[in-house]
Amino acid sequence: MSPDDFRRHGHEVIDWIADYYSRIESFPVLSQVKPGEVRSSLSPHAPVQGEPFAAMLKDVEEKILPGITHWQSPKFYAFFPGNASGPGILGDLLSSGLGVQGMLWATSPACTELETLVLDWLVPALRLPEKFLSTNTGGGVIQDTASSATLCATLAARERTTNFASNREGCRGKLVAYTSSQAHSSVEKAIQIAGIGRENLRLIEVDEKFAMKSAALAAAIDKDKQAGLTPFFVCATVGTTSSNAIDPVLQIGEICRRENMWLHVDAAMSGTAAMCPEFRHIHNGVELADSYCFNPHKWMFTNFDCDCFYVADRKALIQTLSVLPEYLKNKATESGAVIDYRDWQIPLGRRFRSLKLWFVLRYYGIEGLQFHIREHVRIAQQFAEWVCGDERFEIAAPAPLNLVCFRLRAGDWANQKLMDALNRSGELYLTHTKLDSKLTLRLCVGQTNTTARHVENAWKRIKAEADHIR
Amino acid sequence: MSPDDFRRHGHEVIDWIADYYSRIESFPVLSQVKPGEVRSSLSPHAPVQGEPFAAMLKDVEEKILPGITHWQSPKFYAFFPGNASGPGILGDLLSSGLGVQGMLWATSPACTELETLVLDWLVPALRLPEKFLSTNTGGGVIQDTASSATLCATLAARERTTNFASNREGCRGKLVAYTSSQAHSSVEKAIQIAGIGRENLRLIEVDEKFAMKSAALAAAIDKDKQAGLTPFFVCATVGTTSSNAIDPVLQIGEICRRENMWLHVDAAMSGTAAMCPEFRHIHNGVELADSYCFNPHKWMFTNFDCDCFYVADRKALIQTLSVLPEYLKNKATESGAVIDYRDWQIPLGRRFRSLKLWFVLRYYGIEGLQFHIREHVRIAQQFAEWVCGDERFEIAAPAPLNLVCFRLRAGDWANQKLMDALNRSGELYLTHTKLDSKLTLRLCVGQTNTTARHVENAWKRIKAEADHIR
Repeated sequence: MSPDDFRRHGHEVIDWIADYYSRIESFPVLSQVKPGEVRSSLSPHAPVQGEPFAAMLKDVEEKILPGITHWQSPKFYAFFPGNASGPGILGDLLSSGLGVQGMLWATSPACTELETLVLDWLVPALRLPEKFLSTNTGGGVIQDTASSATLCATLAARERTTNFASNREGCRGKLVAYTSSQAHSSVEKAIQIAGIGRENLRLIEVDEKFAMKSAALAAAIDKDKQAGLTPFFVCATVGTTSSNAIDPVLQIGEICRRENMWLHVDAAMSGTAAMCPEFRHIHNGVELADSYCFNPHKWMFTNFDCDCFYVADRKALIQTLSVLPEYLKNKATESGAVIDYRDWQIPLGRRFRSLKLWFVLRYYGIEGLQFHIREHVRIAQQFAEWVCGDERFEIAAPAPLNLVCFRLRAGDWANQKLMDALNRSGELYLTHTKLDSKLTLRLCVGQTNTTARHVENAWKRIKAEADHIR
Repeated sequence: MSPDDFRRHGHEVIDWIADYYSRIESFPVLSQVKPGEVRSSLSPHAPVQGEPFAAMLKDVEEKILPGITHWQSPKFYAFFPGNASGPGILGDLLSSGLGVQGMLWATSPACTELETLVLDWLVPALRLPEKFLSTNTGGGVIQDTASSATLCATLAARERTTNFASNREGCRGKLVAYTSSQAHSSVEKAIQIAGIGRENLRLIEVDEKFAMKSAALAAAIDKDKQAGLTPFFVCATVGTTSSNAIDPVLQIGEICRRENMWLHVDAAMSGTAAMCPEFRHIHNGVELADSYCFNPHKWMFTNFDCDCFYVADRKALIQTLSVLPEYLKNKATESGAVIDYRDWQIPLGRRFRSLKLWFVLRYYGIEGLQFHIREHVRIAQQFAEWVCGDERFEIAAPAPLNLVCFRLRAGDWANQKLMDALNRSGELYLTHTKLDSKLTLRLCVGQTNTTARHVENAWKRIKAEADHIR
C-alpha cells in the first residue's frame, strides 16, 4: 500500500471510527449474535488474490459490528471498564505506524525513555512512594495486563526468596503465597504458572467489607512457618474485582516487612482514583510494597493494553527475568547506562505503548483526568443512593468509588432473571458476582463518555425490569 | 475529544504517518541519540492542564523521531524484521477504535470468531497439519510473542506430563526439557518461569549447519531417564535467530512420539516462508508436533504484536491455563459452544488483534504474500552470492531463506569495526551473532519495502567500509 493509498484509506478508517462513536448508543451494548454466527458470515478460506480495501471496511460494518460487545458505549457497566479516548487511540495509531519494537534501549531509545519518563510522571500524580521512581532504586514498566504484572511480581518474589535458586534448579515445593479470598483469579494463575502450586496459595478470609483480615494473614503465615514452609509472597488488592474492596495495605505491609516477604499491590482499576487527593487514602501503605500495578486501560482513558507495573528494587526483577544471548548484546546495554525493558517482562518484543499514555496525560492534563474520575465516582454514588431508596433492592457491599454491588432482596433467581432481561434489552450491560454466596449485580461506572443521564436511564430500566420479575 | 475533533486530529496523524513512510529513507536507520537525550528533551512532570493536540504531534516530530530506530526502513536488516504494512496498521487502528476486550467470547463474539477463523485460514496456507484446526481437536490463538507461545507450550507440557499435579502441588524437580544450543533465549526464560529450572534444560549440540543433532537428543533423553528424571518437552526451531538453521523436526518428532514428550516448534520468522510451495519443506515433521508458532509480526506484514500459536489438543492447553472465578461466568461459556481465549494465554485481557491479520491476508491475498516472500528470499540469496564472490568475506552458515550470516575473514576485531561503522553511518542497520565462536554479521531481508536496490546499496556500503578496515 503506497503512502498515498494509506492516506486515503486511513482517512476512511478515521471517519468510520468517528462515525462509530457518534452512533455507538444505537447499538445493543452486549452483542446479540449466537455462537458461530459471525464466523459463518465470513469466507471460510483466505483469498488467493488481494481484495480492495473497501471490501474489508464493508465487512467490518456489516459482519463484524453485529458481533461487537460495545466496551466503548457509555452504557457499558460490566466487569471493569476498558475505557478508550481520542488521544489514546491516536497515540496508539502512531505506535502502529512507527512500528518499532522496543525490546532493547538501542532498538528505539525513545520507546524506552518515554516509557520510563511517563511512568515516573505517575508516581507523584498517584502519590506512589518515591522508591518506585526510575531515578531511585525502582522503576516502572508497561505490561499488557495486571495478570502479567502479578506473574512478574510472583517470579521476582520467588527468586529473591530462594536467592535465585528456583531459576537455576526449579521449584522445590516449600514456598507459600497469600492473597484474599476476593483477589483476582490472576493470582492463582500466576502461582500455578510459577510452579508454586495452588495448594500453596492461601486464600485469606475477608471481613464484612470483603477486605483481607490482616490478623488472619498473620495467623496463616505463623501456621505455615511452624509447618516448615516458607511464606514468600502476598498480593493485596486495592479494589477487588467482585466488590471494589480495599485491603488494609498498611497492616499487610507491616507483616510483610516483619516476615521479609514480597508485597505486591494490585490496584488494577481503582489505582486511577488516587489522581484525586480525596481518594489518595487508597494508597496508604503502598510505601511498604515491593511492587504495585494499576491499569490505565481500565479507568484512565488509555486503550487496551496498558498496565503500569512498578517495583521498588529493579535489580531483583531484572535478575529474575534477564537472559542475554549473543544476538542481543550491544554497546548501550553493556554500558549499563540504559534500561532494556525486555528484562522487565515475560515476552522479548514490545510495542511503543507509552505513546498513547503520554498523549492521554497531556491531552487531559491532571486536572482533566481528576474531573472525569470525580464525575464517575459521583454518578456511581448517586446510583447507590437510588438503590438504597428502593426497598426491593439492597446494597451488597460498600461502594468506595465507582462500582456499586446491589441485588434484589427476592433471591438469586430474581437477580439472574433481572440481569438477563437487562442485558438482552441491549440498553445496558452489567455483570454479576457472588457476595456472601448470593448472586449480586455489579454496576461499574467508568466508560469515558458515561454521564449522569446514562446512569439515570440505566436505573429507570432496572426498576422497570424489576417490576416484571415475579 | 469529540468525534469531530477525533476526525480532524485523526486525519493529521494519518497524514503524518503517510509522510513518515515517504521520507523514511532519509533517517539514520539506527537512532543516533545518546542515553538520556530523549528524556531530557521532554517535560519532567505531567501537565496540570490539558494541552492542544498539535503540541503532541510537534513533539513526536521533533523529540521522539530522533530517538527512533526505524524498523520500517527498507534499510533495516537487524535481528529479525518486524514488518508492518498499510492494511496491518489500519486493521490495528480499527481495533484501537472499537476498543473491545476479548477475554471471553461474550465480551465480543466477533473478536473470538474472527481470530479462530483467520488462524484456521493459515493452516492450509502454511501446510500445517489439520489437527491444528479449531474444527479438529486443536486450534490457534494469537499471542503477543513467540516467547509467550513457548511459555504456554512449556506449561501445557508440564501439566500433561504430571497429570496436572504441578498446577496443584507445584513443581517437584524431576522434569527435563530439551532444545538446541542455537534455540531462542525465550526457551530458557520459559523453563525458568515455569519452575523447571535452567539446570533441567539440556542444550543439545548442533551439526555443521547449526541444526539440532537428533541422535544427540535421543542420547540425552536416555541418559536422563537412566538418572531417574522425566523428559517432558522439546522445543525445535525452524529458523534459529542466529543463523536461520532448521532443526530436523521429523526426526525430533519421532523421538518425542516414542518418548511421549511434548514437541513445540518455534518457527517465529521462517514459518511465513511456508506460504510458498517451494519452501514448504521447512514444515516437514510438524505433523508430529503438539504445538507450533510463527509470527506474522516478523515477516508477514502484520504490525507487532501478532504471534500465531497452534495446539493439537486444545483441551490440554485450556486445562492448564483456565481459572474460572464467579465474575467471569456466563451462559455462553457454560454452553461449551464457544471459545474463551483467556484460557489459551497468560493474561486475562486481550485486544482484537485478528483484525490486522485479516486485513493483511485479504489486502495482499495468498499470491501477494507469496510474491513478497519470494522477492525477499531472492534478494537475500543474491546478497549471499555477492559475499561469496568477494574473497575478503566468507559465508558463515547456510542461508536457506532470507537471512545471510557472513564475516570478514580478518577476525572478530575487523567484523566488530565493520559493523560499528555501518551502523554509525545510518545507511543500514545490521546486528551480529557468534557462530563457531566467531563474530558473525547477520543481514536479514524482510522489511515490507526492501527491494533489490536497497540490498545492492547495502553491499556497496559494506564493501566500501571494508576497504577502510585495517
